[in-house]
Amino acid sequence: MKYGYMGKILRVNLTNKTFSEERVTEKLAREFIGGAGFGLKYLFDEVPAKADPLGPENKLIFAVGPLSGTSAPCASRMAVTTKSPLTGAVGMSLTGGYFPVELKFAGYDAMIIEGKSDKPVYLWINNGNVSFRPAEKVWGTNTIDCQQLIKDELNDQNIRIACIGPAGENQSKLACIINERRAAGRKGLGAIMGAKNLKAIAIRGSQPVAVSSDSQFSQAKTSMQNAMKESPVLYSTFAHTGTPLVVEVTSELGIFPAKNWTETGVVAPVAKLGVEANAAKKVGKEHCYKCPVACSQLKLVREGTYAGAISVPEFEAMYSLGGQTGVDNLDSIIAADRLCDELGLDNMSTGVTVGFAMELYEKGILTQEDTDGVELNFGNHEAMIKLISKMAYRRGIGAILADGVKVAAAKIGKGAEKYALHVKGLELPGYDVRGAKAHGLNYATAYTGADHNRGYAFQEIFGIPVPEAVDRFISHGKGRLTKWNQDIRTATCDCPTMCAFLLDMAFPATAAQNAADMLNGATGLDFTAEDIEKVGERVNNLARAFNVREGFTRDDDNLPERILTEPLKEGSSKGQFISKDELNQMLDDYYAERGWTAEGVPTKQKLLELSLDTAVTELEKLEKI
Amino acid sequence: MKYGYMGKILRVNLTNKTFSEERVTEKLAREFIGGAGFGLKYLFDEVPAKADPLGPENKLIFAVGPLSGTSAPCASRMAVTTKSPLTGAVGMSLTGGYFPVELKFAGYDAMIIEGKSDKPVYLWINNGNVSFRPAEKVWGTNTIDCQQLIKDELNDQNIRIACIGPAGENQSKLACIINERRAAGRKGLGAIMGAKNLKAIAIRGSQPVAVSSDSQFSQAKTSMQNAMKESPVLYSTFAHTGTPLVVEVTSELGIFPAKNWTETGVVAPVAKLGVEANAAKKVGKEHCYKCPVACSQLKLVREGTYAGAISVPEFEAMYSLGGQTGVDNLDSIIAADRLCDELGLDNMSTGVTVGFAMELYEKGILTQEDTDGVELNFGNHEAMIKLISKMAYRRGIGAILADGVKVAAAKIGKGAEKYALHVKGLELPGYDVRGAKAHGLNYATAYTGADHNRGYAFQEIFGIPVPEAVDRFISHGKGRLTKWNQDIRTATCDCPTMCAFLLDMAFPATAAQNAADMLNGATGLDFTAEDIEKVGERVNNLARAFNVREGFTRDDDNLPERILTEPLKEGSSKGQFISKDELNQMLDDYYAERGWTAEGVPTKQKLLELSLDTAVTELEKLEKI
Repeated sequence: MKYGYMGKILRVNLTNKTFSEERVTEKLAREFIGGAGFGLKYLFDEVPAKADPLGPENKLIFAVGPLSGTSAPCASRMAVTTKSPLTGAVGMSLTGGYFPVELKFAGYDAMIIEGKSDKPVYLWINNGNVSFRPAEKVWGTNTIDCQQLIKDELNDQNIRIACIGPAGENQSKLACIINERRAAGRKGLGAIMGAKNLKAIAIRGSQPVAVSSDSQFSQAKTSMQNAMKESPVLYSTFAHTGTPLVVEVTSELGIFPAKNWTETGVVAPVAKLGVEANAAKKVGKEHCYKCPVACSQLKLVREGTYAGAISVPEFEAMYSLGGQTGVDNLDSIIAADRLCDELGLDNMSTGVTVGFAMELYEKGILTQEDTDGVELNFGNHEAMIKLISKMAYRRGIGAILADGVKVAAAKIGKGAEKYALHVKGLELPGYDVRGAKAHGLNYATAYTGADHNRGYAFQEIFGIPVPEAVDRFISHGKGRLTKWNQDIRTATCDCPTMCAFLLDMAFPATAAQNAADMLNGATGLDFTAEDIEKVGERVNNLARAFNVREGFTRDDDNLPERILTEPLKEGSSKGQFISKDELNQMLDDYYAERGWTAEGVPTKQKLLELSLDTAVTELEKLEKI
Repeated sequence: MKYGYMGKILRVNLTNKTFSEERVTEKLAREFIGGAGFGLKYLFDEVPAKADPLGPENKLIFAVGPLSGTSAPCASRMAVTTKSPLTGAVGMSLTGGYFPVELKFAGYDAMIIEGKSDKPVYLWINNGNVSFRPAEKVWGTNTIDCQQLIKDELNDQNIRIACIGPAGENQSKLACIINERRAAGRKGLGAIMGAKNLKAIAIRGSQPVAVSSDSQFSQAKTSMQNAMKESPVLYSTFAHTGTPLVVEVTSELGIFPAKNWTETGVVAPVAKLGVEANAAKKVGKEHCYKCPVACSQLKLVREGTYAGAISVPEFEAMYSLGGQTGVDNLDSIIAADRLCDELGLDNMSTGVTVGFAMELYEKGILTQEDTDGVELNFGNHEAMIKLISKMAYRRGIGAILADGVKVAAAKIGKGAEKYALHVKGLELPGYDVRGAKAHGLNYATAYTGADHNRGYAFQEIFGIPVPEAVDRFISHGKGRLTKWNQDIRTATCDCPTMCAFLLDMAFPATAAQNAADMLNGATGLDFTAEDIEKVGERVNNLARAFNVREGFTRDDDNLPERILTEPLKEGSSKGQFISKDELNQMLDDYYAERGWTAEGVPTKQKLLELSLDTAVTELEKLEKI
């Protein structure tokens, strides 16, 4: 295999407790680069249509990119791909930290987990040696204890571990996978590990990651580092504030959602949850491997009821555990964020679900009888903390809420669906799309559901005129923009794998060229910027084909009723909403830009153009094309 | 210096941020061996009479023994010595795990911490390099997070750390020092670190610890290992059950104290807190360095309100957080034990203080008004958990209870002192001494207060006839026995430093000879068994001299009123108590055996016989002798 790759994929079968290694082919590398590309390719090829996401047929694919483990900055990322139990669509999430590069150092570009263990186990991957170890000792532990206990058991404190908490064990569809203090969040990836009886994956590696051309790689890296320095925000602001900066930006734009999207936080969030408030709790920063920015701000509560809570809550935690729930007590948000990490619950979907339950409570659809006596009003942070534990353990009302708003609404009935803010089952992230319409179209069409990370419209949020200046209130042209946002993100971040903040905050205009240069130095594969962009399109089309095969249609490219019918009541986006007609028009526009049918199905021509022959075969079999 | 020692003592001044090294002299080694011996020697010589325990004049002395870091089994122990803020007497505690040997590997037999930092710092000791690092980042964190954060900050996961939690920061006199999951507990050692603004000590070392004679050491070790194998309980039972075994033993003897010593648990404790109940929660074991036994049983709560709690609660936790509080919910005891570790609260004194408050509440001396609405009845485990947090943070009623029963009783008044079970301010451990009179005499006379670890009468508990068979109900002969128990424990465990379970459960009859053989192999100092025993006597006399200098008298060698006036009401020790006359008779007997005056003051002759010339000078100055 080319340099930058280890050249090997580890395949682990939990049913038989066997493992094998496969080669990374040059074709795979050229067509999918790595990360989410590899994940999608294996998911589409190997997980049969209509497979039960929590059954042994589903697979969990961990994949780094050819830049991981090299000296490239901001490349310690890993894609985790599966069929999501939360959405039934593609479940793909990226995580950072140190676990990703450790997989590479252990000798692998990817790891495919198959089958289901009969008893709880954890995997121990030590430089190519793989063992299946009993996990009774750690089954039931939180993610922090679990990591330490496994290090102690294996007598090596330098092991890196990805694991699930009680939420994953209990197959909550909001469960995530935690490595160190980071998460492969959303889409219920943790439930997959729980269903497979896989508590954790422990890795230790020491194999060097070579690059194809030291001089070429070094030159590309210097260019990239210079481009990072030229960013007006990356080092000057973002490195100090981290993502809570976005609380201020979105509040200014009137799109920081509050109280289950019935309000838009304008003043309170900035004062209580913004940069200054967060800075007052900051005690340090946490890096991913080889990251010169270190955006994660470590925050500690020193006084009061939540004293001792320490975590790295990001913007999305400010939204989900803060704005969405009406909680403006930052200490409780830090505590809730830490609790989510310990329990292995995705903090975004969890917070949105708590806010949803709060609105139902205020509307009388849920009563104290349903909540075991908890007064579930907006703003009640103690109730929030209680609910989070209940959700992870499926206790009381938690049993209803543990699988997110869509499942909960169906169980509750009484019109609760109206208040369930999700797309394809995935809870909405923290940008009120009524005032940012490309964001809205991305939520409607992203292959993972309402996922800001699949096609982040930084043009609307930060006013960056790349590839062109846009008006966030106007839907015209958002089809083309969303396609570009989704493809460029996939191509330059999710596959190589590199941090998305490079795209959003540093060099969006040259992201494809930078990825090509970096990848060429690392791999010698001679990608052009166009090749890179094409990979983004390929992966998005393959993901779409997967979802089509699963039965998703244009009807699923939708937005919640509240977005479509209730204009924003206050702030800079007052009066804005996305009408159903407007959404339809954006969808038509988007499908046309993608070369898909009016039903949102990739055409045979498009798939063949992208060399997705297998997708053609599969969709033809189902008469989808 | 002789082998087995590193030959160096590290002296750290927190006021000036300076450090220096001193030599271990052969005289020091011969007279005090190491561990508690070194601690007492430096404490007596360097901390002036009447020093404020929480002031900069007090010192904190960490000392390992010449066996630590060698291949000797069960020798990873460290003594931490200071003037206790809880008792005003000597505060000395031992801890195990891995931190102790790391100190040795870093090059030191002992470390003396002096002065007071103006700002929170932690020490970073890396193979003889010492730095004072700002601790703002970790000040306010719990002990588990603190250890991880420091490892991350120093970018070395193999560092070993001793630290305090919020309790130590808030100078609770019940605060302990935590390393890994182990504690230098009781006597408020954590408050000393808090008062000195010292959050943690991080150590990394790689220096080999040589022994004087490989063949001699190896031979001694083989003998010791064989003696361990011959123990009827050590490997066959104790290694599997750990200390919860003692719940069953003490219940059988009718001396497992319950509900602030108003009852004696006989049936419930065994069923709910005994070996079988504990085994059901066991998920693994934890070792100290080079320990072939691994008595620490890791227990995990998998279900219910306390799910996820994981800890290694010992017998004393079963007593203090269980029997003493009337709580028989083992899950809550595991959770409370873990909480104590996180907060850096001594679980024994904490539990006793909670039980004390519960009795006051049941008697109406404390009301719901005092407890912020908490219903503080015996058996209320939720109240216990709430109270523990309040104590660590000095919140509400916690501000009154944070310094233990003696201080709390004085603050509360209303006759509360009657219910405060302590000696010299140190809360009683879990053996009802009314049915074990040598235990009672040891509680009354041990130099650290009511401390079972200073002279454990295994003869009464396990029926071991060494040095002679005893009747636990009879006070006659307990003076001699207690002297022997205190001296042999100090000599063979606290100074060399070795695990006390070797004495209690393996080879009490040959403990002194074993220590001599092991130490001779390690150091070449040619100790005889008599020399070893003499060190025990020397240290106990020096400690007594320290306490006399601080103003302690025979009156302080007392037992709580309840022990002296209320006979046991049930079980195998029914009707037993220790009358004041009986205690006085035992004290007379004990002082005579020790060669002390009837006032409990060491005579000049005895001190000179033990080469404690400095003690003579000091006590003569005060006209104590």
